[in-house]
Amino acid sequence: MDTTYVHGYTAPEARRLGDQADTLAGLLHAGTAYPAGSRVLEVGCGVGAQTVHLVARSPGAHLTAVDVSEDSLDQARRRVPGVEFRQADLFALDGEWDHLFVCFVLEHLPEPEKALAHLQTLLRPGGTITVIEGDHGSAFFHPRSEHAQAAIDCLVRLQADAGGDGLLGRRLYPLLADAGFDDVRVEPRTVYADASKPELVTGFTRDTFTAMVEGVGETAVANGLICEADWARGIRDLYRTTREYGAFHYTFFKATARRTPGGAS
Amino acid sequence: MDTTYVHGYTAPEARRLGDQADTLAGLLHAGTAYPAGSRVLEVGCGVGAQTVHLVARSPGAHLTAVDVSEDSLDQARRRVPGVEFRQADLFALDGEWDHLFVCFVLEHLPEPEKALAHLQTLLRPGGTITVIEGDHGSAFFHPRSEHAQAAIDCLVRLQADAGGDGLLGRRLYPLLADAGFDDVRVEPRTVYADASKPELVTGFTRDTFTAMVEGVGETAVANGLICEADWARGIRDLYRTTREYGAFHYTFFKATARRTPGGAS
Repeated sequence: MDTTYVHGYTAPEARRLGDQADTLAGLLHAGTAYPAGSRVLEVGCGVGAQTVHLVARSPGAHLTAVDVSEDSLDQARRRVPGVEFRQADLFALDGEWDHLFVCFVLEHLPEPEKALAHLQTLLRPGGTITVIEGDHGSAFFHPRSEHAQAAIDCLVRLQADAGGDGLLGRRLYPLLADAGFDDVRVEPRTVYADASKPELVTGFTRDTFTAMVEGVGETAVANGLICEADWARGIRDLYRTTREYGAFHYTFFKATARRTPGGAS
Repeated sequence: MDTTYVHGYTAPEARRLGDQADTLAGLLHAGTAYPAGSRVLEVGCGVGAQTVHLVARSPGAHLTAVDVSEDSLDQARRRVPGVEFRQADLFALDGEWDHLFVCFVLEHLPEPEKALAHLQTLLRPGGTITVIEGDHGSAFFHPRSEHAQAAIDCLVRLQADAGGDGLLGRRLYPLLADAGFDDVRVEPRTVYADASKPELVTGFTRDTFTAMVEGVGETAVANGLICEADWARGIRDLYRTTREYGAFHYTFFKATARRTPGGAS
Protein backbone atom coordinates (compact mmCIF):
# COMPACT_ATOMS: atom_id res chain seq x y z
CA MET A 1 0.00 0.00 0.00
CA ASP A 2 1.23 3.50 -0.65
CA THR A 3 2.35 5.51 2.33
CA THR A 4 1.66 8.93 0.77
CA TYR A 5 -1.88 8.89 2.13
CA VAL A 6 -3.43 12.02 0.64
CA HIS A 7 -5.51 12.83 3.72
CA GLY A 8 -2.55 12.64 6.11
CA TYR A 9 -2.28 10.93 9.48
CA THR A 10 -3.21 13.78 11.85
CA ALA A 11 -5.47 13.62 14.90
CA PRO A 12 -8.26 15.73 13.32
CA GLU A 13 -8.10 13.42 10.31
CA ALA A 14 -8.53 10.36 12.54
CA ARG A 15 -11.53 12.08 14.12
CA ARG A 16 -12.94 12.89 10.68
CA LEU A 17 -12.64 9.26 9.63
CA GLY A 18 -14.45 8.20 12.80
CA ASP A 19 -17.25 10.75 12.34
CA GLN A 20 -17.59 9.81 8.70
CA ALA A 21 -17.88 6.12 9.47
CA ASP A 22 -20.52 6.72 12.14
CA THR A 23 -22.66 9.01 9.97
CA LEU A 24 -22.44 6.68 7.02
CA ALA A 25 -22.49 3.33 8.80
CA GLY A 26 -26.08 2.54 7.92
CA LEU A 27 -25.61 3.56 4.31
CA LEU A 28 -22.34 1.74 3.72
CA HIS A 29 -22.72 -1.37 5.88
CA ALA A 30 -26.34 -2.25 5.07
CA GLY A 31 -26.33 -5.72 3.54
CA THR A 32 -22.95 -6.71 4.99
CA ALA A 33 -23.16 -9.36 7.72
CA TYR A 34 -20.88 -12.37 7.89
CA PRO A 35 -21.88 -15.76 9.35
CA ALA A 36 -20.63 -16.84 12.74
CA GLY A 37 -17.34 -18.64 12.44
CA SER A 38 -16.46 -17.26 9.03
CA ARG A 39 -12.95 -15.96 8.49
CA VAL A 40 -13.15 -12.28 7.53
CA LEU A 41 -10.21 -10.09 6.58
CA GLU A 42 -10.52 -6.31 6.54
CA VAL A 43 -7.81 -4.89 4.32
CA GLY A 44 -6.64 -1.33 5.01
CA CYS A 45 -8.56 -0.85 8.25
CA GLY A 46 -6.76 2.40 9.10
CA VAL A 47 -7.89 3.72 12.50
CA GLY A 48 -10.66 1.12 12.68
CA ALA A 49 -13.44 3.46 11.58
CA GLN A 50 -15.21 0.69 9.63
CA THR A 51 -13.95 -2.16 11.82
CA VAL A 52 -16.22 -1.13 14.66
CA HIS A 53 -19.25 -1.51 12.39
CA LEU A 54 -18.06 -4.83 10.98
CA VAL A 55 -17.80 -6.21 14.52
CA ALA A 56 -21.22 -4.85 15.46
CA ARG A 57 -22.92 -6.41 12.44
CA SER A 58 -21.05 -9.73 12.42
CA PRO A 59 -20.42 -10.47 16.11
CA GLY A 60 -19.72 -14.17 15.54
CA ALA A 61 -17.28 -13.83 12.67
CA HIS A 62 -13.50 -14.22 13.14
CA LEU A 63 -12.34 -10.79 12.07
CA THR A 64 -8.75 -9.92 11.28
CA ALA A 65 -7.95 -6.35 10.28
CA VAL A 66 -4.72 -5.24 8.66
CA ASP A 67 -3.18 -1.93 7.75
CA VAL A 68 0.19 -0.71 6.57
CA SER A 69 0.42 1.99 9.28
CA GLU A 70 1.37 1.03 12.84
CA ASP A 71 0.18 4.43 14.11
CA SER A 72 -3.27 3.87 12.63
CA LEU A 73 -3.36 0.36 14.08
CA ASP A 74 -2.58 1.72 17.56
CA GLN A 75 -5.66 3.91 17.32
CA ALA A 76 -7.69 1.07 15.87
CA ARG A 77 -6.76 -1.22 18.79
CA ARG A 78 -7.99 1.41 21.24
CA ARG A 79 -11.16 1.99 19.25
CA VAL A 80 -12.15 -1.65 18.74
CA PRO A 81 -10.93 -3.98 21.50
CA GLY A 82 -11.03 -7.71 20.86
CA VAL A 83 -10.20 -7.62 17.16
CA GLU A 84 -6.96 -9.08 15.80
CA PHE A 85 -5.12 -6.16 14.23
CA ARG A 86 -1.97 -6.83 12.20
CA GLN A 87 0.53 -4.65 10.37
CA ALA A 88 0.94 -5.77 6.78
CA ASP A 89 1.29 -4.52 3.25
CA LEU A 90 -1.64 -5.59 1.05
CA PHE A 91 0.65 -7.35 -1.41
CA ALA A 92 2.35 -9.32 1.38
CA LEU A 93 -0.91 -10.76 2.73
CA ASP A 94 -1.42 -14.50 2.61
CA GLY A 95 -3.69 -17.12 4.13
CA GLU A 96 -7.16 -18.25 3.07
CA TRP A 97 -10.28 -16.26 3.94
CA ASP A 98 -14.01 -16.64 3.46
CA HIS A 99 -14.67 -12.94 3.04
CA LEU A 100 -12.68 -9.80 2.32
CA PHE A 101 -13.81 -6.27 3.18
CA VAL A 102 -11.98 -3.36 1.55
CA CYS A 103 -13.27 0.16 2.18
CA PHE A 104 -11.70 3.43 0.94
CA VAL A 105 -8.45 1.62 0.08
CA LEU A 106 -8.25 1.10 -3.70
CA GLU A 107 -8.62 4.85 -4.29
CA HIS A 108 -5.17 5.33 -2.73
CA LEU A 109 -3.33 2.63 -4.68
CA PRO A 110 -1.36 3.22 -7.87
CA GLU A 111 -2.38 -0.19 -9.23
CA PRO A 112 -5.82 -1.19 -7.95
CA GLU A 113 -5.98 -3.89 -10.66
CA LYS A 114 -2.97 -5.66 -9.17
CA ALA A 115 -4.32 -5.26 -5.65
CA LEU A 116 -7.57 -6.97 -6.63
CA ALA A 117 -5.71 -9.74 -8.43
CA HIS A 118 -3.69 -10.42 -5.28
CA LEU A 119 -6.71 -10.17 -2.99
CA GLN A 120 -8.48 -12.78 -5.09
CA THR A 121 -5.73 -15.31 -4.28
CA LEU A 122 -6.56 -14.89 -0.57
CA LEU A 123 -10.16 -16.07 -0.99
CA ARG A 124 -11.38 -19.62 -0.81
CA PRO A 125 -13.23 -20.66 -3.96
CA GLY A 126 -16.69 -19.09 -3.73
CA GLY A 127 -15.54 -16.60 -1.09
CA THR A 128 -16.69 -13.00 -1.37
CA ILE A 129 -15.10 -9.60 -1.59
CA THR A 130 -16.88 -6.37 -0.65
CA VAL A 131 -15.37 -3.13 -1.88
CA ILE A 132 -16.62 0.35 -1.00
CA GLU A 133 -15.34 3.52 -2.64
CA GLY A 134 -16.42 7.10 -3.10
CA ASP A 135 -16.19 9.12 -6.29
CA HIS A 136 -15.51 12.82 -5.91
CA GLY A 137 -16.97 13.45 -9.36
CA SER A 138 -20.35 12.59 -7.83
CA ALA A 139 -20.30 15.70 -5.64
CA PHE A 140 -22.69 18.41 -6.77
CA PHE A 141 -24.56 20.94 -4.75
CA HIS A 142 -26.65 24.05 -4.41
CA PRO A 143 -25.78 26.88 -4.50
CA ARG A 144 -23.49 26.03 -7.41
CA SER A 145 -19.96 27.41 -7.21
CA GLU A 146 -17.00 27.21 -9.56
CA HIS A 147 -14.71 27.92 -6.62
CA ALA A 148 -16.06 25.02 -4.59
CA GLN A 149 -15.65 22.81 -7.65
CA ALA A 150 -12.06 24.02 -8.06
CA ALA A 151 -11.32 23.13 -4.43
CA ILE A 152 -12.70 19.61 -4.97
CA ASP A 153 -10.66 19.32 -8.15
CA CYS A 154 -7.53 20.11 -6.09
CA LEU A 155 -8.23 17.11 -3.87
CA VAL A 156 -8.69 14.87 -6.92
CA ARG A 157 -5.48 16.21 -8.44
CA LEU A 158 -3.44 15.74 -5.24
CA GLN A 159 -4.76 12.22 -4.88
CA ALA A 160 -3.76 11.51 -8.50
CA ASP A 161 -0.30 13.02 -7.85
CA ALA A 162 0.04 10.59 -4.94
CA GLY A 163 -0.76 7.70 -7.29
CA GLY A 164 -4.42 7.32 -6.34
CA ASP A 165 -7.78 7.99 -8.00
CA GLY A 166 -10.47 10.02 -6.24
CA LEU A 167 -12.84 9.09 -9.07
CA LEU A 168 -12.45 5.35 -8.61
CA GLY A 169 -16.03 4.55 -7.55
CA ARG A 170 -17.35 4.56 -11.09
CA ARG A 171 -14.66 2.02 -12.06
CA LEU A 172 -15.50 -0.64 -9.49
CA TYR A 173 -17.43 -2.82 -11.90
CA PRO A 174 -14.78 -2.90 -14.62
CA LEU A 175 -11.99 -3.33 -12.05
CA LEU A 176 -13.60 -6.35 -10.38
CA ALA A 177 -14.82 -7.92 -13.61
CA ASP A 178 -11.42 -7.45 -15.21
CA ALA A 179 -9.72 -9.07 -12.21
CA GLY A 180 -11.75 -12.21 -12.95
CA PHE A 181 -14.23 -12.07 -10.06
CA ASP A 182 -17.66 -13.66 -10.60
CA ASP A 183 -21.10 -12.24 -9.81
CA VAL A 184 -19.88 -8.66 -9.69
CA ARG A 185 -22.66 -6.40 -8.43
CA VAL A 186 -22.18 -2.68 -7.87
CA GLU A 187 -24.72 -0.46 -6.16
CA PRO A 188 -24.69 3.30 -5.75
CA ARG A 189 -25.16 4.38 -2.14
CA THR A 190 -26.15 7.99 -2.37
CA VAL A 191 -25.95 10.67 0.29
CA TYR A 192 -28.30 13.57 -0.27
CA ALA A 193 -28.47 16.24 2.43
CA ASP A 194 -30.68 19.30 2.71
CA ALA A 195 -32.16 21.29 5.60
CA SER A 196 -34.79 18.60 6.23
CA LYS A 197 -31.91 16.29 7.31
CA PRO A 198 -29.84 18.50 9.63
CA GLU A 199 -27.80 15.61 11.08
CA LEU A 200 -26.68 14.63 7.59
CA VAL A 201 -25.86 18.22 6.67
CA THR A 202 -23.64 18.41 9.74
CA GLY A 203 -22.31 14.85 9.75
CA PHE A 204 -21.69 14.47 6.06
CA THR A 205 -21.66 17.74 4.10
CA ARG A 206 -19.80 19.70 6.77
CA ASP A 207 -17.84 17.27 8.94
CA THR A 208 -17.06 14.62 6.35
CA PHE A 209 -16.88 15.98 2.83
CA THR A 210 -16.05 19.64 3.39
CA ALA A 211 -13.61 18.67 6.18
CA MET A 212 -11.90 16.25 3.80
CA VAL A 213 -11.48 18.90 1.12
CA GLU A 214 -10.41 21.50 3.69
CA GLY A 215 -7.74 19.10 4.94
CA VAL A 216 -5.70 19.36 1.73
CA GLY A 217 -5.83 23.16 1.53
CA GLU A 218 -2.31 23.92 2.70
CA THR A 219 -0.83 21.35 0.32
CA ALA A 220 -2.96 22.54 -2.59
CA VAL A 221 -1.87 26.15 -2.08
CA ALA A 222 1.77 25.19 -1.38
CA ASN A 223 1.86 23.10 -4.57
CA GLY A 224 0.50 26.01 -6.59
CA LEU A 225 -2.69 24.24 -7.64
CA ILE A 226 -4.80 27.18 -6.47
CA CYS A 227 -4.23 30.60 -4.90
CA GLU A 228 -5.09 31.16 -1.27
CA ALA A 229 -8.00 33.53 -2.00
CA ASP A 230 -9.66 31.13 -4.44
CA TRP A 231 -9.17 28.29 -1.98
CA ALA A 232 -10.79 30.26 0.83
CA ARG A 233 -13.72 31.12 -1.39
CA GLY A 234 -14.13 27.51 -2.50
CA ILE A 235 -14.27 26.31 1.10
CA ARG A 236 -16.64 29.12 2.06
CA ASP A 237 -18.90 28.11 -0.83
CA LEU A 238 -18.87 24.48 0.32
CA TYR A 239 -20.00 25.64 3.77
CA ARG A 240 -22.70 27.68 2.04
CA THR A 241 -24.30 24.42 0.82
CA THR A 242 -24.94 23.56 4.49
CA ARG A 243 -27.14 26.61 5.04
CA GLU A 244 -30.90 26.71 5.10
CA TYR A 245 -31.49 26.56 1.36
CA GLY A 246 -28.48 24.49 0.37
CA ALA A 247 -28.32 20.90 -0.85
CA PHE A 248 -25.51 18.41 -1.31
CA HIS A 249 -25.22 15.14 -3.26
CA TYR A 250 -22.52 12.47 -3.15
CA THR A 251 -22.47 8.85 -4.30
CA PHE A 252 -20.52 5.99 -2.78
CA PHE A 253 -20.31 2.70 -4.64
CA LYS A 254 -20.54 -0.66 -2.91
CA ALA A 255 -19.45 -3.72 -4.84
CA THR A 256 -19.71 -7.38 -4.01
CA ALA A 257 -18.16 -10.20 -6.00
CA ARG A 258 -17.17 -13.81 -5.61
CA ARG A 259 -14.09 -15.84 -6.37
CA THR A 260 -14.95 -18.42 -9.03
CA PRO A 261 -16.39 -21.37 -7.07
CA GLY A 262 -14.19 -23.78 -9.07
CA GLY A 263 -11.15 -21.99 -7.70
CA ALA A 264 -9.82 -20.80 -11.07
CA SER A 265 -9.37 -17.07 -11.30
CA MET B 1 -45.18 27.12 -19.96
CA ASP B 2 -42.47 27.92 -22.48
CA THR B 3 -42.93 26.62 -25.98
CA THR B 4 -39.23 26.47 -26.85
CA TYR B 5 -39.04 22.92 -25.56
CA VAL B 6 -35.33 22.11 -25.77
CA HIS B 7 -35.87 18.49 -26.79
CA GLY B 8 -38.24 19.38 -29.67
CA TYR B 9 -41.53 17.78 -30.64
CA THR B 10 -40.41 15.15 -33.15
CA ALA B 11 -41.62 11.55 -33.44
CA PRO B 12 -38.30 10.02 -32.29
CA GLU B 13 -38.42 12.36 -29.29
CA ALA B 14 -41.93 11.19 -28.41
CA ARG B 15 -40.65 7.61 -28.63
CA ARG B 16 -37.67 8.49 -26.44
CA LEU B 17 -39.96 9.96 -23.79
CA GLY B 18 -42.07 6.81 -23.86
CA ASP B 19 -39.03 4.50 -23.59
CA GLN B 20 -37.59 6.62 -20.82
CA ALA B 21 -40.78 6.52 -18.80
CA ASP B 22 -41.09 2.74 -19.15
CA THR B 23 -37.48 2.05 -18.14
CA LEU B 24 -37.66 4.41 -15.23
CA ALA B 25 -41.25 3.85 -14.11
CA GLY B 26 -40.33 1.74 -11.10
CA LEU B 27 -37.63 4.13 -10.01
CA LEU B 28 -39.61 7.34 -10.42
CA HIS B 29 -43.14 6.25 -9.50
CA ALA B 30 -42.34 4.08 -6.47
CA GLY B 31 -44.17 5.61 -3.51
CA THR B 32 -46.70 7.50 -5.62
CA ALA B 33 -50.23 6.11 -5.36
CA TYR B 34 -53.32 8.27 -4.90
CA PRO B 35 -56.47 7.15 -3.06
CA ALA B 36 -59.59 6.22 -4.97
CA GLY B 37 -61.77 9.24 -5.56
CA SER B 38 -58.99 11.79 -5.04
CA ARG B 39 -58.68 14.63 -7.53
CA VAL B 40 -55.24 14.43 -9.16
CA LEU B 41 -53.83 16.92 -11.65
CA GLU B 42 -50.81 16.07 -13.77
CA VAL B 43 -49.21 19.29 -14.96
CA GLY B 44 -47.20 19.17 -18.19
CA CYS B 45 -48.13 15.63 -19.18
CA GLY B 46 -46.62 15.95 -22.67
CA VAL B 47 -47.19 12.79 -24.70
CA GLY B 48 -48.52 10.95 -21.63
CA ALA B 49 -45.29 9.10 -20.86
CA GLN B 50 -45.82 9.40 -17.09
CA THR B 51 -49.62 9.50 -17.27
CA VAL B 52 -49.79 5.84 -18.17
CA HIS B 53 -47.95 4.95 -14.96
CA LEU B 54 -50.05 7.28 -12.82
CA VAL B 55 -53.20 5.54 -14.07
CA ALA B 56 -51.70 2.09 -13.49
CA ARG B 57 -50.70 2.91 -9.90
CA SER B 58 -53.80 4.92 -8.91
CA PRO B 59 -56.64 3.27 -10.85
CA GLY B 60 -59.38 4.75 -8.65
CA ALA B 61 -58.18 8.36 -8.68
CA HIS B 62 -59.81 11.04 -10.84
CA LEU B 63 -56.89 12.03 -13.02
CA THR B 64 -56.80 15.14 -15.16
CA ALA B 65 -53.70 15.77 -17.26
CA VAL B 66 -52.84 19.08 -18.88
CA ASP B 67 -50.20 20.28 -21.30
CA VAL B 68 -49.56 23.39 -23.32
CA SER B 69 -49.08 21.47 -26.59
CA GLU B 70 -52.12 20.17 -28.49
CA ASP B 71 -49.88 17.92 -30.59
CA SER B 72 -48.50 16.25 -27.49
CA LEU B 73 -51.99 15.88 -26.08
CA ASP B 74 -53.15 14.12 -29.26
CA GLN B 75 -50.44 11.52 -28.72
CA ALA B 76 -51.23 11.30 -25.02
CA ARG B 77 -54.92 10.62 -25.75
CA ARG B 78 -53.95 7.74 -28.02
CA ARG B 79 -51.46 6.41 -25.47
CA VAL B 80 -53.72 6.57 -22.40
CA PRO B 81 -57.42 6.21 -23.17
CA GLY B 82 -59.90 7.14 -20.47
CA VAL B 83 -57.95 10.03 -18.96
CA GLU B 84 -59.23 13.61 -19.17
CA PHE B 85 -56.60 15.52 -21.14
CA ARG B 86 -56.87 19.31 -21.40
CA GLN B 87 -54.86 21.99 -23.18
CA ALA B 88 -53.81 24.70 -20.74
CA ASP B 89 -50.93 26.92 -19.77
CA LEU B 90 -49.66 26.19 -16.27
CA PHE B 91 -50.27 29.75 -15.12
CA ALA B 92 -53.88 29.70 -16.42
CA LEU B 93 -54.82 26.58 -14.42
CA ASP B 94 -57.50 26.89 -11.78
CA GLY B 95 -59.76 24.64 -9.70
CA GLU B 96 -59.01 22.78 -6.48
CA TRP B 97 -57.09 19.51 -6.39
CA ASP B 98 -56.05 17.00 -3.76
CA HIS B 99 -52.76 16.13 -5.43
CA LEU B 100 -50.50 17.59 -8.10
CA PHE B 101 -47.94 15.59 -10.09
CA VAL B 102 -45.28 17.53 -12.02
CA CYS B 103 -42.55 15.55 -13.78
CA PHE B 104 -39.77 16.99 -16.00
CA VAL B 105 -41.60 20.31 -16.27
CA LEU B 106 -39.91 22.86 -13.99
CA GLU B 107 -36.57 22.32 -15.75
CA HIS B 108 -38.07 23.94 -18.86
CA LEU B 109 -39.58 27.00 -17.19
CA PRO B 110 -37.87 30.38 -16.92
CA GLU B 111 -39.44 31.00 -13.50
CA PRO B 112 -39.96 27.74 -11.63
CA GLU B 113 -40.47 29.73 -8.40
CA LYS B 114 -43.55 31.43 -9.85
CA ALA B 115 -44.83 28.17 -11.28
CA LEU B 116 -44.68 26.54 -7.82
CA ALA B 117 -46.32 29.55 -6.19
CA HIS B 118 -49.21 29.29 -8.65
CA LEU B 119 -49.47 25.51 -8.35
CA GLN B 120 -49.79 25.87 -4.58
CA THR B 121 -52.97 27.91 -5.04
CA LEU B 122 -54.51 24.92 -6.87
CA LEU B 123 -54.16 22.60 -3.88
CA ARG B 124 -56.67 22.13 -1.11
CA PRO B 125 -55.17 22.82 2.33
CA GLY B 126 -53.10 19.74 3.20
CA GLY B 127 -53.00 18.61 -0.44
CA THR B 128 -49.72 17.28 -1.83
CA ILE B 129 -47.42 18.07 -4.70
CA THR B 130 -44.96 15.58 -6.19
CA VAL B 131 -42.18 16.97 -8.34
CA ILE B 132 -39.64 14.87 -10.26
CA GLU B 133 -36.63 16.35 -12.02
CA GLY B 134 -33.29 15.20 -13.36
CA ASP B 135 -29.97 17.00 -12.97
CA HIS B 136 -27.54 16.66 -15.84
CA GLY B 137 -24.68 17.54 -13.49
CA SER B 138 -25.25 14.15 -11.88
CA ALA B 139 -24.10 12.31 -15.02
CA PHE B 140 -20.69 10.72 -14.71
CA PHE B 141 -19.34 7.61 -16.31
CA HIS B 142 -16.54 5.27 -17.21
CA PRO B 143 -14.56 5.54 -19.38
CA ARG B 144 -14.22 9.23 -18.56
CA SER B 145 -14.26 11.61 -21.52
CA GLU B 146 -13.93 15.37 -21.79
CA HIS B 147 -15.68 15.22 -25.14
CA ALA B 148 -18.69 13.39 -23.71
CA GLN B 149 -18.78 15.96 -20.92
CA ALA B 150 -18.64 18.79 -23.48
CA ALA B 151 -21.60 17.27 -25.35
CA ILE B 152 -23.62 17.12 -22.12
CA ASP B 153 -22.62 20.70 -21.35
CA CYS B 154 -24.08 21.72 -24.73
CA LEU B 155 -27.45 20.31 -23.71
CA VAL B 156 -27.31 22.21 -20.41
CA ARG B 157 -26.33 25.39 -22.22
CA LEU B 158 -29.10 25.09 -24.85
CA GLN B 159 -31.65 24.44 -22.13
CA ALA B 160 -30.42 27.55 -20.29
CA ASP B 161 -30.60 29.56 -23.53
CA ALA B 162 -34.24 28.45 -23.85
CA GLY B 163 -34.91 29.75 -20.34
CA GLY B 164 -34.70 26.42 -18.53
CA ASP B 165 -32.28 24.72 -16.12
CA GLY B 166 -30.94 21.24 -16.81
CA LEU B 167 -29.38 21.28 -13.33
CA LEU B 168 -32.64 21.92 -11.52
CA GLY B 169 -32.84 18.65 -9.57
CA ARG B 170 -30.44 19.81 -6.86
CA ARG B 171 -32.63 22.89 -6.31
CA LEU B 172 -35.90 21.11 -5.63
CA TYR B 173 -35.66 21.45 -1.87
CA PRO B 174 -34.94 25.20 -1.83
CA LEU B 175 -37.53 25.84 -4.57
CA LEU B 176 -40.35 24.08 -2.72
CA ALA B 177 -39.38 25.39 0.72
CA ASP B 178 -39.08 28.91 -0.64
CA ALA B 179 -42.52 28.66 -2.26
CA GLY B 180 -43.94 28.05 1.23
CA PHE B 181 -44.77 24.35 0.99
CA ASP B 182 -44.72 22.30 4.20
CA ASP B 183 -43.11 18.92 4.85
CA VAL B 184 -40.74 19.19 1.90
CA ARG B 185 -38.93 15.89 1.39
CA VAL B 186 -36.50 15.31 -1.46
CA GLU B 187 -35.03 11.91 -2.32
CA PRO B 188 -32.38 11.05 -4.86
CA ARG B 189 -33.47 8.30 -7.25
CA THR B 190 -30.25 7.09 -8.77
CA VAL B 191 -29.75 5.16 -11.99
CA TYR B 192 -26.52 3.21 -12.13
CA ALA B 193 -25.94 0.98 -15.15
CA ASP B 194 -23.11 -1.41 -15.93
CA ALA B 195 -22.79 -4.66 -17.88
CA SER B 196 -24.50 -6.62 -15.09
CA LYS B 197 -27.70 -4.68 -15.90
CA PRO B 198 -27.90 -4.87 -19.72
CA GLU B 199 -31.53 -3.71 -19.91
CA LEU B 200 -30.64 -0.53 -18.02
CA VAL B 201 -27.56 0.06 -20.18
CA THR B 202 -29.79 -0.12 -23.24
CA GLY B 203 -32.93 1.47 -21.82
CA PHE B 204 -31.29 4.28 -19.91
CA THR B 205 -27.67 4.96 -20.85
CA ARG B 206 -28.19 4.44 -24.59
CA ASP B 207 -31.86 5.02 -25.40
CA THR B 208 -32.66 7.66 -22.79
CA PHE B 209 -29.66 9.73 -21.78
CA THR B 210 -27.39 9.41 -24.82
CA ALA B 211 -30.41 9.74 -27.15
CA MET B 212 -31.42 12.93 -25.31
CA VAL B 213 -27.96 14.45 -25.71
CA GLU B 214 -27.73 13.27 -29.31
CA GLY B 215 -31.05 14.97 -30.04
CA VAL B 216 -29.62 18.47 -29.60
CA GLY B 217 -26.52 17.84 -31.75
CA GLU B 218 -27.62 19.72 -34.86
CA THR B 219 -28.66 22.75 -32.84
CA ALA B 220 -25.48 22.69 -30.74
CA VAL B 221 -23.29 22.63 -33.86
CA ALA B 222 -25.46 25.17 -35.73
CA ASN B 223 -25.30 27.54 -32.74
CA GLY B 224 -21.52 27.26 -32.66
CA LEU B 225 -21.39 25.71 -29.16
CA ILE B 226 -19.17 22.88 -30.42
CA CYS B 227 -17.59 21.79 -33.70
CA GLU B 228 -18.98 18.81 -35.56
CA ALA B 229 -15.91 16.62 -34.95
CA ASP B 230 -15.91 17.22 -31.19
CA TRP B 231 -19.63 16.58 -31.05
CA ALA B 232 -19.23 13.27 -32.91
CA ARG B 233 -16.46 12.23 -30.54
CA GLY B 234 -18.54 13.18 -27.49
CA ILE B 235 -21.45 11.06 -28.66
CA ARG B 236 -19.14 8.19 -29.56
CA ASP B 237 -17.65 8.38 -26.06
CA LEU B 238 -21.11 8.30 -24.48
CA TYR B 239 -21.86 5.12 -26.45
CA ARG B 240 -18.53 3.76 -25.21
CA THR B 241 -19.90 3.83 -21.64
CA THR B 242 -22.48 1.22 -22.77
CA ARG B 243 -19.80 -1.31 -23.70
CA GLU B 244 -18.69 -4.27 -21.64
CA TYR B 245 -16.51 -2.40 -19.17
CA GLY B 246 -18.41 0.86 -19.07
CA ALA B 247 -20.53 2.33 -16.29
CA PHE B 248 -23.00 5.19 -16.10
CA HIS B 249 -24.50 7.14 -13.19
CA TYR B 250 -27.39 9.61 -13.16
CA THR B 251 -29.54 10.96 -10.33
CA PHE B 252 -33.17 12.02 -10.51
CA PHE B 253 -34.71 13.87 -7.59
CA LYS B 254 -38.21 13.18 -6.36
CA ALA B 255 -39.79 15.73 -4.04
CA THR B 256 -43.02 15.64 -2.12
CA ALA B 257 -44.52 18.52 -0.17
CA ARG B 258 -47.81 19.64 1.27
CA ARG B 259 -49.82 22.82 1.18
CA THR B 260 -50.08 24.23 4.70
CA PRO B 261 -53.06 22.43 6.28
CA GLY B 262 -54.42 25.74 7.58
CA GLY B 263 -54.68 26.91 4.00
CA ALA B 264 -52.25 29.82 4.39
CA SER B 265 -49.35 29.68 1.98
